[in-house]
Amino acid sequence: MTVIDREPSGDSAPTLSVPVVDSPPGDQAVGWRHRHLLDVDVLSLADLELVMRTTDAMREVLARPIAKVPALRGRNVTILFYEASTRTRISFEVAAKNLSADVVNIATATSSVTKGESLVDTVKTVEALGAQLLVIRHAVSGAPALAAEVFSGSVLNGGDGWHAHPTQALLDLYTIRASLAGPDGSLAGRKVVILGDVLHSRVARSNIWTLTAAGADLWLCGPATLVRGFEAWALRGAAGRRFTVTSSVDDALRDADVVMALRIQKERMATGLLPSLREYSARYGLTRERLAMARPGALVMHPGPMNEGVEIAPDVAAGVQSRIEEQVRNGVAVRMALLYLLAGVRS
Amino acid sequence: MTVIDREPSGDSAPTLSVPVVDSPPGDQAVGWRHRHLLDVDVLSLADLELVMRTTDAMREVLARPIAKVPALRGRNVTILFYEASTRTRISFEVAAKNLSADVVNIATATSSVTKGESLVDTVKTVEALGAQLLVIRHAVSGAPALAAEVFSGSVLNGGDGWHAHPTQALLDLYTIRASLAGPDGSLAGRKVVILGDVLHSRVARSNIWTLTAAGADLWLCGPATLVRGFEAWALRGAAGRRFTVTSSVDDALRDADVVMALRIQKERMATGLLPSLREYSARYGLTRERLAMARPGALVMHPGPMNEGVEIAPDVAAGVQSRIEEQVRNGVAVRMALLYLLAGVRS
Amino acid sequence: MTVIDREPSGDSAPTLSVPVVDSPPGDQAVGWRHRHLLDVDVLSLADLELVMRTTDAMREVLARPIAKVPALRGRNVTILFYEASTRTRISFEVAAKNLSADVVNIATATSSVTKGESLVDTVKTVEALGAQLLVIRHAVSGAPALAAEVFSGSVLNGGDGWHAHPTQALLDLYTIRASLAGPDGSLAGRKVVILGDVLHSRVARSNIWTLTAAGADLWLCGPATLVRGFEAWALRGAAGRRFTVTSSVDDALRDADVVMALRIQKERMATGLLPSLREYSARYGLTRERLAMARPGALVMHPGPMNEGVEIAPDVAAGVQSRIEEQVRNGVAVRMALLYLLAGVRS
Repeated sequence: MTVIDREPSGDSAPTLSVPVVDSPPGDQAVGWRHRHLLDVDVLSLADLELVMRTTDAMREVLARPIAKVPALRGRNVTILFYEASTRTRISFEVAAKNLSADVVNIATATSSVTKGESLVDTVKTVEALGAQLLVIRHAVSGAPALAAEVFSGSVLNGGDGWHAHPTQALLDLYTIRASLAGPDGSLAGRKVVILGDVLHSRVARSNIWTLTAAGADLWLCGPATLVRGFEAWALRGAAGRRFTVTSSVDDALRDADVVMALRIQKERMATGLLPSLREYSARYGLTRERLAMARPGALVMHPGPMNEGVEIAPDVAAGVQSRIEEQVRNGVAVRMALLYLLAGVRS
Repeated sequence: MTVIDREPSGDSAPTLSVPVVDSPPGDQAVGWRHRHLLDVDVLSLADLELVMRTTDAMREVLARPIAKVPALRGRNVTILFYEASTRTRISFEVAAKNLSADVVNIATATSSVTKGESLVDTVKTVEALGAQLLVIRHAVSGAPALAAEVFSGSVLNGGDGWHAHPTQALLDLYTIRASLAGPDGSLAGRKVVILGDVLHSRVARSNIWTLTAAGADLWLCGPATLVRGFEAWALRGAAGRRFTVTSSVDDALRDADVVMALRIQKERMATGLLPSLREYSARYGLTRERLAMARPGALVMHPGPMNEGVEIAPDVAAGVQSRIEEQVRNGVAVRMALLYLLAGVRS
Repeated sequence: MTVIDREPSGDSAPTLSVPVVDSPPGDQAVGWRHRHLLDVDVLSLADLELVMRTTDAMREVLARPIAKVPALRGRNVTILFYEASTRTRISFEVAAKNLSADVVNIATATSSVTKGESLVDTVKTVEALGAQLLVIRHAVSGAPALAAEVFSGSVLNGGDGWHAHPTQALLDLYTIRASLAGPDGSLAGRKVVILGDVLHSRVARSNIWTLTAAGADLWLCGPATLVRGFEAWALRGAAGRRFTVTSSVDDALRDADVVMALRIQKERMATGLLPSLREYSARYGLTRERLAMARPGALVMHPGPMNEGVEIAPDVAAGVQSRIEEQVRNGVAVRMALLYLLAGVRS
């Protein structure tokens, strides 16, 4: 008998009365087979569809007067963040609490848990402290994968280095589909532009997989120094699915259905990759004028937090085409869905 | 259908078996009509009475072996503090948890949520993350009012700049009434002195409204530099109700029923408003000798945290006349009452 | 009637269906009579046995799919830490939440609660804010005892200066007994070695009481500068029970059943007590070679966090003889047991 038993109880699971969970999580009927979620590249179309439908169910939960279900009652969700990120941390925390889980927050910038310890030691320690689902954010690409090797529960990548940010990509996909998908959920024929510092962006990398999988016509656009290496990837494709890389903001935005601006890290200027924020803003900032090149009503997105006036103009961010708050809202629902699905997998 | 529905459910509300809530919150029978609480100047005498009676009910809850009611079960109370204040933050946190709410804490000194963002963006983001009741503390006067303009739930001001600190004023009123009020709850004929740095004090400003409304004979006392501007206000009155301003500690304390000492911010000396803490203490510190000028058994109060030995002597703070711990205790009950009342208002 | 009533309700207590709690906590049948736990030196053999059996029960709770019991539902457990310690803080937090308590965390390094306040004021404030069980860690020996003098609930020492760390000693005892105890729970005939900076270690001091009480043949080993003063103690004994002090690592490890390495604080070198970490490691580090002097299968322990490569070699820490993760796991169970027992005492 082990202290940590991740099998869901027959009692609590069925109380989440949403379409996708007519059968209890934990038996394979629900169709989810991934113990961890480290990136989106391993997700099949069926997996993506399951995440989207489970997110629908969670949106329905969020619309209730009491937005809370007992699905993960008594489960320990530990949120181990090696990078400061209040917004994403809170999104996971609220998601877990909405499922009635117990949440342990560890922010290692202000923490002594990792003092002189390797990541592996820390993961073993938090497991011994009771962690069953581990959400990890780390500045080093691959850290969540390393954690998954030694953790006996489920690891959910909350963003690692430049590598991956799977929950962001899934909430972006959900947000775009809500406005633009065909009856089959496909984004075929929809032009989606990711604009900005693609090079350093785990958001862009994860979105490449999911958006091309959904059939979108994906464009990456930024200064040549900030899309470096992506042309080669575009040619071989993501699982064979092609996308386009350009430094021409006009080519990218023309007739776009979605424009997603990425945050510019001010630290990048020191590296010589960016001449100045002012020049970046002048050439690539998402202004009302540039947005006019896109389709009427094109969606405006941003993973946040924004540098308003740099990569996006305040009036665009707050305009009627903006889905930025909707992204935040969907982020809670997507994270509820993923915690729910992962909790149902027996290791 | 919206994600955030602030109407209380018919199920959970009546479980708070206290006199004031025989009818469920949310219908206007309870008599509370303010969606936000930004300051106390908008509260009618009936409003004040309702807060006092609801606080009575919450004191009764706090006296139970399990000091917890399900009134706000599943509601998200987000505590967004732009100023460090563990004591007030915990008071709100405990109050919310006693009502079974889910609490999200954001301390922006250590937070990245506001990185490069305006207050308005931050408020929209925390709403999208699920905030339904937002408690906000900010160094800039008016920040909670700005938040209320864009937040679709209820905003509770936890202290803004020099402007207002409504929950402190209400807990002070409750604490004084518990010892000194007549059968009608009035403080008529009671001399209440606020002693110290009135100029920079949001506590003093909010107390002016509530204490004069309750009929107290209110005196503000401090060095001339620290009561500046209040004489003019005293002349025109708070909603016409007069109070007295003086720099004579003898005049103020003579026959006082209540003496409330305010915290001296050490930073003030740099501004030239205060010669030295030692001189302040010698001339205005609340010592046993000075307290002897007040009525026998006069109440000693302080909003905390104290600089013992500066604005108040340790033996006075810990003496039998002190109501300082009682203020802290009542603070939890008042905040429970306000969260409960605000949760019942449909926007 | 007081606001804080620490008598457990007849409703919630019996729901913890573990052997030790067939009768509800709070009546003296359970046999626990200590209102506070400040150190282990006051614990009788019967007390130790009760803690061990209650911890067994809590391990059984932790093994359930939903590792949660309602025993402390609605109780306020305030964790007031004046020293950074994420690991111990989380252990108490998880323990309290597993018992369904409400947890308030105050880390005073980042807190303003203690600004200009004495410890006594702070304790009175947190009590007025609702604290019923107070876990306190402080760099000054005796701080929890001072807190206990003014707090009307129960104080649990989470580590104070060099003085005591009772929960660590109890989890160490539990971990050792699980592998090595005779049918009566005794460690008679078992050689237990505490290796390292004994001088500055509250872990060592508390373990002296519990391990000698359990009948172990206890050895303290470290450089002469770091065991100073312990020879005299060893001669008079802990409640008359003897132990051995040596600077010979060979003498200590020979035929040992348990080797517990202590963390070396890097700050110690500045004091001249330690020549260098490298020299310490060469002479006293727990390596595979040194461990070979102990009995085959001897247990390896460490209170954490480790300086791997200094006081313990990584392969030893991660080896099959290591009980280090088991110590962390038992720490949660022991803290659940102690919170449960203390909650049952009426003051």
